[in-house]
Amino acid sequence: MDLLNVISVEAAENLLIKNFSDYRLNTESVIISEAAGRFLASDQVSAVTVPSFRRSTKDGYAVRSVDVSGASETLPAFLMLAGEVNMGTVADYKLKPGEAAYVPTGGMVPDGADSVVMIEYSEKLTDDEVSIYRPTAVNENIINIGDDIEEGCTVMEQGRKLKPADLGVLTSIGLTEVEVFVKPAVSVISTGDEIAGPDEDIKPGQIRDINTYTIAAAAEALGCRIIERVVVKDDQQLLTEVLRECYAKSDIVLLSGGSSVGVKDYSLQVIDSLGAPGVLCHGIAFKPGKPTIIANAGGKPVIGLPGHPVSALVVFGILGRTLVHLMYRTVPPVESWVEAVLSENVNGAAGREAWQMVRLAKSSTGYEAVPVHGESGLITMLASSFGTVRIPLNKEGLSKGSSVRVYPL
Amino acid sequence: MDLLNVISVEAAENLLIKNFSDYRLNTESVIISEAAGRFLASDQVSAVTVPSFRRSTKDGYAVRSVDVSGASETLPAFLMLAGEVNMGTVADYKLKPGEAAYVPTGGMVPDGADSVVMIEYSEKLTDDEVSIYRPTAVNENIINIGDDIEEGCTVMEQGRKLKPADLGVLTSIGLTEVEVFVKPAVSVISTGDEIAGPDEDIKPGQIRDINTYTIAAAAEALGCRIIERVVVKDDQQLLTEVLRECYAKSDIVLLSGGSSVGVKDYSLQVIDSLGAPGVLCHGIAFKPGKPTIIANAGGKPVIGLPGHPVSALVVFGILGRTLVHLMYRTVPPVESWVEAVLSENVNGAAGREAWQMVRLAKSSTGYEAVPVHGESGLITMLASSFGTVRIPLNKEGLSKGSSVRVYPL
Repeated sequence: MDLLNVISVEAAENLLIKNFSDYRLNTESVIISEAAGRFLASDQVSAVTVPSFRRSTKDGYAVRSVDVSGASETLPAFLMLAGEVNMGTVADYKLKPGEAAYVPTGGMVPDGADSVVMIEYSEKLTDDEVSIYRPTAVNENIINIGDDIEEGCTVMEQGRKLKPADLGVLTSIGLTEVEVFVKPAVSVISTGDEIAGPDEDIKPGQIRDINTYTIAAAAEALGCRIIERVVVKDDQQLLTEVLRECYAKSDIVLLSGGSSVGVKDYSLQVIDSLGAPGVLCHGIAFKPGKPTIIANAGGKPVIGLPGHPVSALVVFGILGRTLVHLMYRTVPPVESWVEAVLSENVNGAAGREAWQMVRLAKSSTGYEAVPVHGESGLITMLASSFGTVRIPLNKEGLSKGSSVRVYPL
Repeated sequence: MDLLNVISVEAAENLLIKNFSDYRLNTESVIISEAAGRFLASDQVSAVTVPSFRRSTKDGYAVRSVDVSGASETLPAFLMLAGEVNMGTVADYKLKPGEAAYVPTGGMVPDGADSVVMIEYSEKLTDDEVSIYRPTAVNENIINIGDDIEEGCTVMEQGRKLKPADLGVLTSIGLTEVEVFVKPAVSVISTGDEIAGPDEDIKPGQIRDINTYTIAAAAEALGCRIIERVVVKDDQQLLTEVLRECYAKSDIVLLSGGSSVGVKDYSLQVIDSLGAPGVLCHGIAFKPGKPTIIANAGGKPVIGLPGHPVSALVVFGILGRTLVHLMYRTVPPVESWVEAVLSENVNGAAGREAWQMVRLAKSSTGYEAVPVHGESGLITMLASSFGTVRIPLNKEGLSKGSSVRVYPL
């Protein structure tokens, strides 16, 4: 265990990948209407074909394209009305040459027909006859059997985070429940004699606990469930007890404060004592948030975050995202950004990757990225920011007027 | 009430703004740890100053900058140790000229000191003396009283959607609860004889209900609560009863299907009968999703979405976002995107704004946007897409190789 063994952000993420890729979450079955945002525990293979019949995508007439070939406003095709398909029922007749049948959107296209003409391009002349003003291509306005989903195909893979549209896929293949990973159980511990819990009176020299709220909310947003929030004073014995208790029942233990090299910083020792191999790194080359501990305690991740609220939240944003997606056996989604013009020069941090908080201001051409300055202890700084501009490890800084990507917080 | 009175997407959004800006949601108090994602019901004014004392941002020595002026490795300043500040307690002495005091990160800076030297730039010589190797600027490594939040200032405004960092701001000003808007109550109704509910046996010609799942999940993601999900057959009497019942207890009623001009489309009439002024528009110039009804029924929004699952979800994504943020008395956040190169030509839709679904593929230079083709009835099409490329109303299309913005779904 090296003190202040500082590694790059990328190396820190690789440590997580190396140590926790095999972590196994339990699984549970949830009903589809409560499955949004959950992560699939297994590949989903369809036992059915969707649609199971040919469906019309328009209100119109099912026809044989050969019968309306060359049809126009001036020279319509005249077809005999063979019938009308009712929604949700079987079209139980076969279209013969020279015939058409009315089909509503979503209705079954009768056998014999190979296309549907929109109703706008037709005129019903009598109860028995319709004129068609347009030719059709084969399959026009038809969803064929299996166009959406073929029986036996994998519609979604293990680890997928279920979006609203995904619920539609699951229900369309006839599922009412789906097996998902149980959300990782997370304990959030905030340490320090200066931290007053929400129900304590605040004494001079103390500040309110921030980190158990912000880190817990960020972990929940990533798909975790919070099972403990604790504020612990700087007492090695007490911290050891609390950590062991949380460790026993959690998938991930997050601790903030006590990770810099101060007099009362027992946390490194205490974390290292939880289980082998113990502390993997103490310090990442990142601003804000250098003093960060990553430990593997008997196969479970224990992360020591900086005490400064902004640093703690930003570092958790990076490491937590990687870690939680590893546990869910998937990769984080591609991040999106807003392109903006930097309103002033921004410095990098020597030997460290740096994230600059910015707010967005509308400009005549788009957006301006305005740096939000302040010490990383200032929580309002993070709250007032829209996102971050990222300055790579070996870059000195970014110039005013340059085009930058702002990643939303 | 005009049949197929088609308006632009922008005009549709303006209709929503004009009709529902005054909609009043009730408010409720929630504890801070459960407030993430909720929308503030009122401005939050701080009753306290944060921090309420001068805090050090580093482990180090509190000094008077004048005493360490010109200090260097070769010519250190020698200061008398006046004491040590314990975390969370009052530094109850005043630093005199020539003195220093140890302060941990977050500790109170004693009176008399105007800066903090990092411990790395010092050496403790005896119990009483320390040498300092660097000069300091006034306020260096100090967060001053009120730097974060001043008493009486508005820290957040009504309508703000609470992010994790925001919870930190609320707790730091001593709040344990906060007043938020009650989530809009939403009913989702799916209509059509071809729709089989999840517990029904599916008959030939029928498909599984998709829209109550997808639209409900999308509404929940926007911050709504779902109070009803109903599948209704095409029966005017039945639809009227269900709609009236849902209308009575909902803030927003969403209905899918039955909005095109088919034989069994009663929904327009039924929606119009719910209350004045009734239907405001029937059709938006948008692909996918032209047949869309917007109604103001006695002050409540009733939206008739297309029956096609993809159209329904995409149209709700646009209108729902505007509507829900209106109700929460705020504006939607700036949308972020991923820049990508289009892999093939994409057509616009004459006279309509068009959204093309695409998936992302990694390329040597970044990302390629690959159009996902298919009829808007295919739910897998939406599920397999990363996002949309948007083609404005009066643009014919986009060329292969052009740089486009992909907005995540």
